[in-house]
Amino acid sequence: MLHKKVFNFSASQAMIPYPVLKQIKKDLLDWNNTKISVMEINHRSDYFVYIVESTKKYLRKLLNIPLNYKIIFCFGGARVQFSIIPINFIKSKFNSTDYINSGYWSNIAINEAKKYCIVNRIDVLYKENGLIKVHPMNNWLISNNSLYLHYCPNETVDGIYIDELPNFHNHVVVADCSSIILSRVLDISKFGLIYASTQKNIGLSGLTLLIIRDDLININKSNTIPSTFNYQYLVKYNSMFSTPPTFIWYVTNLMLKWLTKQGGLSKVEKINKTKSNILYKIIDNSNLYHNNISPKYRSYTNITFTLSNINLHKLFLKESHHAGFLNLSGHKAVGGIRISLYNSMPLIGVKKLAKFMYNFSTRYS
Amino acid sequence: MLHKKVFNFSASQAMIPYPVLKQIKKDLLDWNNTKISVMEINHRSDYFVYIVESTKKYLRKLLNIPLNYKIIFCFGGARVQFSIIPINFIKSKFNSTDYINSGYWSNIAINEAKKYCIVNRIDVLYKENGLIKVHPMNNWLISNNSLYLHYCPNETVDGIYIDELPNFHNHVVVADCSSIILSRVLDISKFGLIYASTQKNIGLSGLTLLIIRDDLININKSNTIPSTFNYQYLVKYNSMFSTPPTFIWYVTNLMLKWLTKQGGLSKVEKINKTKSNILYKIIDNSNLYHNNISPKYRSYTNITFTLSNINLHKLFLKESHHAGFLNLSGHKAVGGIRISLYNSMPLIGVKKLAKFMYNFSTRYS
Repeated sequence: MLHKKVFNFSASQAMIPYPVLKQIKKDLLDWNNTKISVMEINHRSDYFVYIVESTKKYLRKLLNIPLNYKIIFCFGGARVQFSIIPINFIKSKFNSTDYINSGYWSNIAINEAKKYCIVNRIDVLYKENGLIKVHPMNNWLISNNSLYLHYCPNETVDGIYIDELPNFHNHVVVADCSSIILSRVLDISKFGLIYASTQKNIGLSGLTLLIIRDDLININKSNTIPSTFNYQYLVKYNSMFSTPPTFIWYVTNLMLKWLTKQGGLSKVEKINKTKSNILYKIIDNSNLYHNNISPKYRSYTNITFTLSNINLHKLFLKESHHAGFLNLSGHKAVGGIRISLYNSMPLIGVKKLAKFMYNFSTRYS
Repeated sequence: MLHKKVFNFSASQAMIPYPVLKQIKKDLLDWNNTKISVMEINHRSDYFVYIVESTKKYLRKLLNIPLNYKIIFCFGGARVQFSIIPINFIKSKFNSTDYINSGYWSNIAINEAKKYCIVNRIDVLYKENGLIKVHPMNNWLISNNSLYLHYCPNETVDGIYIDELPNFHNHVVVADCSSIILSRVLDISKFGLIYASTQKNIGLSGLTLLIIRDDLININKSNTIPSTFNYQYLVKYNSMFSTPPTFIWYVTNLMLKWLTKQGGLSKVEKINKTKSNILYKIIDNSNLYHNNISPKYRSYTNITFTLSNINLHKLFLKESHHAGFLNLSGHKAVGGIRISLYNSMPLIGVKKLAKFMYNFSTRYS
């Protein structure tokens, strides 16, 4: 049963599933018979420690996280990590790192990292027959002496996705998985550090999940890391070196509980790919919609396209909004249309949008 | 009318006023007729920009913030600023700064600042006739060449309060006002930068308010500041250089609306001082409770005390909890009892606690 008439396709703050919203509403005045709001729980109380441990348990099970990885949470979104990762990982500003450029966000990560270390920028996009493709990983020109390799498997602005999993002998791989975390099965052991901001598949904006291999926790032994962002302290103090955003953690916990009830990541991955396939089919079968990414590298979470007549963009956005499909505007850097399909977007919302798009295209092709 | 039977005296995540909780509950499934939850609002939407501007407007009016000060919000709590302030304010690690040590948190700020600059540590506490006092400001040994002076007007762990306002010719004063912001009238023009985490008087944990004078926004022109914490960028992008914790901002907005309805800060200050006076009177009139801070320097937001017989601490905490007075345990660093009285603690809660304390003391003195 649907609880509302609109569907929120935002790339940033995603839909929150109805059962989660309902639970939050229930806990708002009296959480777990404490007679205080869940917003007032003290982070040093047993009640909150339960939320923390339960959250980690859900994550470990859902993602099958190996025992030699720690789960930590950090203030802010992924963009905070663009600085905090090099600050934690370098030993001197003369250290080399490899950064893959595959679109908007990985490029921003590169520019930020350059402030702290030497960056070997590796451009992996190319065009063939008018279609954007990504060089396979064994063609990536990785340095021998780099401390780590950073890449972003899914570019939310460009709609580009790298499905291939890293397999670089002895290289530490760091991945910004903000837009795909928990949306697919992922072999964590291929990575040294995975990070993901919470506002897409894990709840509200303002927090970042990090899954970090034990040997990477204490690399920069100098005294220059801001303490609240020092991975060593975050591990040692169970992500509570300083007062954490308790309410956001609580919502994350509910999101993971909901996700677990969906039947695990292989099931969720299947649904997510079904959702994107429906929409790409509409795009490919129309003369109105254009996506110029080679199918193999198309994102299943962020579908970007333009309309033949750019004057129709505004009309598309206006009509879609009116029909109850919210936040379909492309990122300001590229324009066009963008459909974001995170876990909480139900299949029915996608089917309705597909129908709208089909009808729109028959009217304006 | 009271909505619950318990009172939360936590020093960290404070009580949220009932009208605020009620409004959140109302907005949870459908905010402002958007048909989406307030948790799903996009930070680039007009809806959210309205929250941002309205929040700043409330703050400017309540605190009478001069026009040459900017209001920004930053990820994390005050402890994040312990690193971020020196990183933004220094030009080289050989710069000197003055840091006042008046208790637990100012001391932690000192240790963090030492990582980034030369810190002239100024201890301002002393004991006279067994009572803790604070040296008056004109006795503080401030350097001539320091970039700024940092102090914490209210020490939440120690229960020490510096009421005197800074008046140092040509010195930039930076103050951690996390525990007193909006609890009293404050002359902002005496400060260069005021910062305060939001979980006490401004809502939920996970965000920090900064009020910064225009000339201090762009001091460190080097390229070493993490972009998401660069004051210049935060001002330029209206605190949305990266995805902000939208829900926490929204709660802050409701808190400020509620506070405005209380009738402004002079009224709120009067109530807050009435609340603390009631409890200090109980303490001073009993043989059981001991507070060793000279009355002039006692905090009106965090009242700390011990019991004559330390074996009674556990019993006091147990019985008070049972009676509905939550989170009265002192900070782990000092033990004892702590009562935190932020704006949302109603007078009735304080009166009931006073009655409990009086009864407890007659039983165990």
